[in-house]
Amino acid sequence: MGTAVRHPLSPRLDHCPEGLPREAYFDSAWYDREMRTIFANQWVLVGRAADYEAGKMRRATVGAAQVIVVRDSAGALAAWHNSCPHRGSELCLKDEEEVGKLIRCPYHAFAFAASDGRLVSTAHAVPTDDFDASAHGLKPVATKVWNGFLYLNLSADPGPLWADVPLDALNNWPMDSLVTAHRWESEIDCNWKAFWENYSECLHCPGIHPELCDLVPVYKRGIMGQSEALDWTPSDATGPNLRVGAQSWTMDGTPCGPIFAGLSEAEHRMGGNFVTLWPSAYVVAHVDYVRAVRIVPIGPEKTKLIAEWYFTPQTLAQPGFDPADVAAFAKIVMTQDGAASEMNHRGMRSPSFTAARLMPEEYEIYRFHQWVTAQMEIIV
Amino acid sequence: MGTAVRHPLSPRLDHCPEGLPREAYFDSAWYDREMRTIFANQWVLVGRAADYEAGKMRRATVGAAQVIVVRDSAGALAAWHNSCPHRGSELCLKDEEEVGKLIRCPYHAFAFAASDGRLVSTAHAVPTDDFDASAHGLKPVATKVWNGFLYLNLSADPGPLWADVPLDALNNWPMDSLVTAHRWESEIDCNWKAFWENYSECLHCPGIHPELCDLVPVYKRGIMGQSEALDWTPSDATGPNLRVGAQSWTMDGTPCGPIFAGLSEAEHRMGGNFVTLWPSAYVVAHVDYVRAVRIVPIGPEKTKLIAEWYFTPQTLAQPGFDPADVAAFAKIVMTQDGAASEMNHRGMRSPSFTAARLMPEEYEIYRFHQWVTAQMEIIV
Amino acid sequence: MGTAVRHPLSPRLDHCPEGLPREAYFDSAWYDREMRTIFANQWVLVGRAADYEAGKMRRATVGAAQVIVVRDSAGALAAWHNSCPHRGSELCLKDEEEVGKLIRCPYHAFAFAASDGRLVSTAHAVPTDDFDASAHGLKPVATKVWNGFLYLNLSADPGPLWADVPLDALNNWPMDSLVTAHRWESEIDCNWKAFWENYSECLHCPGIHPELCDLVPVYKRGIMGQSEALDWTPSDATGPNLRVGAQSWTMDGTPCGPIFAGLSEAEHRMGGNFVTLWPSAYVVAHVDYVRAVRIVPIGPEKTKLIAEWYFTPQTLAQPGFDPADVAAFAKIVMTQDGAASEMNHRGMRSPSFTAARLMPEEYEIYRFHQWVTAQMEIIV
Repeated sequence: MGTAVRHPLSPRLDHCPEGLPREAYFDSAWYDREMRTIFANQWVLVGRAADYEAGKMRRATVGAAQVIVVRDSAGALAAWHNSCPHRGSELCLKDEEEVGKLIRCPYHAFAFAASDGRLVSTAHAVPTDDFDASAHGLKPVATKVWNGFLYLNLSADPGPLWADVPLDALNNWPMDSLVTAHRWESEIDCNWKAFWENYSECLHCPGIHPELCDLVPVYKRGIMGQSEALDWTPSDATGPNLRVGAQSWTMDGTPCGPIFAGLSEAEHRMGGNFVTLWPSAYVVAHVDYVRAVRIVPIGPEKTKLIAEWYFTPQTLAQPGFDPADVAAFAKIVMTQDGAASEMNHRGMRSPSFTAARLMPEEYEIYRFHQWVTAQMEIIV
Repeated sequence: MGTAVRHPLSPRLDHCPEGLPREAYFDSAWYDREMRTIFANQWVLVGRAADYEAGKMRRATVGAAQVIVVRDSAGALAAWHNSCPHRGSELCLKDEEEVGKLIRCPYHAFAFAASDGRLVSTAHAVPTDDFDASAHGLKPVATKVWNGFLYLNLSADPGPLWADVPLDALNNWPMDSLVTAHRWESEIDCNWKAFWENYSECLHCPGIHPELCDLVPVYKRGIMGQSEALDWTPSDATGPNLRVGAQSWTMDGTPCGPIFAGLSEAEHRMGGNFVTLWPSAYVVAHVDYVRAVRIVPIGPEKTKLIAEWYFTPQTLAQPGFDPADVAAFAKIVMTQDGAASEMNHRGMRSPSFTAARLMPEEYEIYRFHQWVTAQMEIIV
Repeated sequence: MGTAVRHPLSPRLDHCPEGLPREAYFDSAWYDREMRTIFANQWVLVGRAADYEAGKMRRATVGAAQVIVVRDSAGALAAWHNSCPHRGSELCLKDEEEVGKLIRCPYHAFAFAASDGRLVSTAHAVPTDDFDASAHGLKPVATKVWNGFLYLNLSADPGPLWADVPLDALNNWPMDSLVTAHRWESEIDCNWKAFWENYSECLHCPGIHPELCDLVPVYKRGIMGQSEALDWTPSDATGPNLRVGAQSWTMDGTPCGPIFAGLSEAEHRMGGNFVTLWPSAYVVAHVDYVRAVRIVPIGPEKTKLIAEWYFTPQTLAQPGFDPADVAAFAKIVMTQDGAASEMNHRGMRSPSFTAARLMPEEYEIYRFHQWVTAQMEIIV
C-alpha cells in the first residue's frame, strides 16, 4: 500500500474513486430506469446475423423488450416488438417460428408485412373511418450488422453503433466466414453491472482464475496488460501475452485450427483482441477462433450469460474436431467469473456497504460507472 | 379494412377507442385499488347456495378477502370475514369445517353466534368495562341468492344485485332443481381483466376455437351474433345459432338429457342464454344443462378459473351418464381461452404496448373498460 | 365477559387497548424500518459464545446484516460485517470457515486483521495517496457475552445489554458450565412479531397446548401465573407451578439429570425462570437444563426459529442419555406455537382486520407493542 507511481500514459487511475451507490444493484426503480435509458438507447448484440435464417422469425431480448427478428426469403433483416398493436398479444409464441411474407397475430389474425411491418389485414374486424391503418403497423426495432453480428436498438432515433469503440477492431479477422458451432448459457444471481465490473479488472485473476493465469502470465500480477504495471514506460512491449508456446485460449494453448492469415504483427503478439460493447456483450477474437459473450439482464438480481464460439469452415472440417473441446477452457473461466460476481453481489446486500472504493487498476470500472451514470440521464 | 357500415341498432362501436392503459394489467397499486373498489362493492358469485351444506362452514374468496359461509341447521345462510376480531386469527382453517351454533376461534376460543356473528364468549379472557362486546362480533359479509347462486358483497351498504343485468334472464330455466355434478379449476398467468376481455369478443374465435366455430357457425365470422354483421337489419333473425342438427354445447351437439320444458321460442333458437356478472362470473344456460364460470383474481398476473356444471336429477339419473363427457367440450374452449389470455397478457408486457386499439366488434370490451374505470372511483 | 376485578398489583391491564396496525405485519417499508432501527440498535443473541470456536469464523444474522464472528487462537471474539470494504464481496462464503490471523477476501485477496479488522494488504492493488487505509478496515459489530450467550449489536454506539431485563436472572444457574447438545430450526410463515405476541400470552394455551397445560396446570386457565388470576392477592404463592410430581419440561416431568445446586427456593417453586430478550430471543432455564430460542426475521412474512438445548457435562455423561429425548417436549410446544402464529398471521391478512383488541391478560403484548413503537423512532 505504498504510493503508486504511474507513467502519465498509463491507464491506471490517479486516485481511488467511489463506485456506484448500493441501490444501483438492488433497487427495482433504478433497474427500470436502466431499461428505459441504457437498454432503450444502445445497440444490443443479439447473436450472429447469419444465425437468423431466411423464412424464420426468432425472438430476442433487448432490455425489457421481447423482439422478433425476421429474415425474409430475399435475405433482408427486420425486427419488431413482439406485441400486436391491436390488443397487445404476443406475435411469436416460441423461440423460433416459420414465417412467410406476413406476420399473422395468433390471437385475432391481424396480418402485418414481415418486411416493413405495415398492417395488411384486420381479418374479421372492420375498423371504422377514424382508424388509421398506417399508424397501426408493427412497432419497429432498428437493426445493424457489424462484423456479422446483429445489433438491435429500441430507440426511434438510434445513434451510430458506438461512439467509443474502435469499429476497425476486427478488420483483420475473417468475421464473415465464421460459423457458430457452440453455445453455452448460464443464469447467475447478480446484477448485470456486477458481471461487467468483474470483467473490467484483473485484480481478481490471481485468486479466481488459476488456469487463466497459467495461460496469461501477466494476469498473475493482477493486471490486464503490461501498460498497467507501475514500472511500465511506453517503450515496453504491451499486451496480455500468452505463456511461451501458447497461441490461443484452449486447454493446452494450442490453436484449434489454422491461424487467421490477415492478423497484424501486434495482433499476433497480443494473442488476439478484446472488443467491449456495453451494455450487452464482449467479443474475444483469438488467432484461431472467436467467442462472443452476451450479458442479458433478467431483473435487478438476475442475469443471463449467453456465449457462442465461432470458427472457420476449415477448422470445423478437421477430422475429430469438437468445438466443445475448445469451449471448455473459456467455460471454466466464465463459471469462475459468474461465481465471483454472485459472491460480490451477495456481499453488497450488506447494510454496511454503501459504495465500492475503486483501486487505480479498476480504471475500466470507473469508466463503466461514468458511462452508466451518463446514459441513465438520456430518456427518449 | 374498408369503411364499416353498421345499422343504427347494431351493437358495433361507431369508432375504434383505446383500451385501458398498460399499468391496468401489471401495476400492483392498480390491482389493490380494484380490490378495494370493484371487488369490495360488487356482488361476487361464490357457487351454488345448495352446495353450502347445513352444519358446515366453507371458505370463499371475495377479492382480497377470505370469507366463511355458514349455513345453520335451520338452513339460513350467513357469511363472515375469516378473521377473529380479537387478534385477527383465521377462524376456519380448512376449505370446509363442521360448525354448530357457534363459531369458535381456534386460537383463543372466542365464540361467536354462527347466525348473527355476535360475540358470545371471550373464553379465558375477562375484558375490562371499556370493552363493548357488541362492537366485537364477527365482521359481516352480505349474502344474496339468485337463481340458486350465492353472491357475497363486502360492502357495508351493498347495492342491488346488478343495475345492468336482466335479472329475469334465467326465469325459464329450472334453476332451483339443478344439481352440481362437475367442477374444473385452472390457474392462468394473466390479469383477471385479460380473461374478461377475451370472453367479451369473438374476433378471436376463428383462430383460437376451431371446435366451437364448428358448433356455432356465426363464430367463424368473428362475431358473437347476427346483429353484429355489417349487413344485418333488425328484421333478421338473431343469435348464435348452433349448426344444423346441434342443440347444445356437447362434443357432438346432442343434448345430454331432456330439453328444459319452459324455454321460450327465442331461447330455443338462440340455443340458450349467456348471463355476464361482472366482475366475478358468467353463466351459460343451454337447453339441457347450465354452466357457471368464476373468475377469481389471485394477483395482478394470476387468475383462477372455477367452472361448474349443473344438471337436473333426471339427466343425472340416465344410465351410463357421466357429466365429465358433457364438460369435455367447454373444457376444450376454456383451455383455449386461458392460453389466449395468457399470450395476450405476456405480449402486453412489451414496453411498446401502451393501450389496445379496440375494433367496432369489441363493444363489450369497451363497455367493460368503462365499467371498470367508473367502479374504481367508488371507494366505500 | 363480566367486569374484571383485578388487584392493583396484578400485571393485568386495566383496559383493552388496540394492537399495532395491520401494516406492521405485512408492509415491507415497515419491516425495513424495523431492521434499520430495532435490529440495528439492539443486542441480538446469536448463540453460545463457546460454540464459536478458536481459529474459525462463523456467519450470524443480525437483522438485515450478515455478520462474521471470529475467535482468534487467544480466545478473543470479534465480529465484522460480512462485506469487503473494497468492492463489497462476501468475506466468509460458508456457514463456517477456518481463519488465521488474517481475514482474506476471496475476491481480490485484500487482507484484514481478524482481531481488529484493520486493512493489512490490498494484494495486487496499489492505492494512490488519497486512499486512507485506516478508513477501510472491516466494519465492526459490537460483541458482548452474558451468561455464556454471545450478543451482537450493529450500532456504532451500542447501549447496555438491556434496560429492562433483570441481568441477574440466571445468576443461580451454572451457565458457564453448560454445553450445547441439541439444536432445532424451523421456518414459519409469519411476521416475527406475531411469534413474539404468541409467546407473550397464555390465553391460547388451553386450546393450543394440551401437553403443556397438563404439565403446568395454571396454563389451563389461560394465564401465565397465579398473579394474573382475578382472585389473586399478593399473599398468594405465585408462579407457573408444575403439576404435582413434575420438576421439569420433559415428556414425563422427570428431570433429565441432576438438579442445579444453586437455585433459590423461589426458583425451585417456579420450576425455573424465563428471560425475555427482545427482539431476538428468550431463554428458559429449568432446574435441570436450559433452552434458548432465537427469533430471526427473514422477511415481513417469514421468520426462522433456532432453538438450542444446554446441559451440564454430568447430565450428558449419563449412560443412555439422549438430548433429543429432552428436546422432544419443547419441540411439541414450539411446533404448536409456530402453527398458531401462522394461522394468526394468515387471518390478519383480511381487509376486515385493522388492529387487534387486546385483553387484560395480554399485558405483555401491550408492553411489547409499546417497546416496538418506541424503538422504531430511534434511527442511528
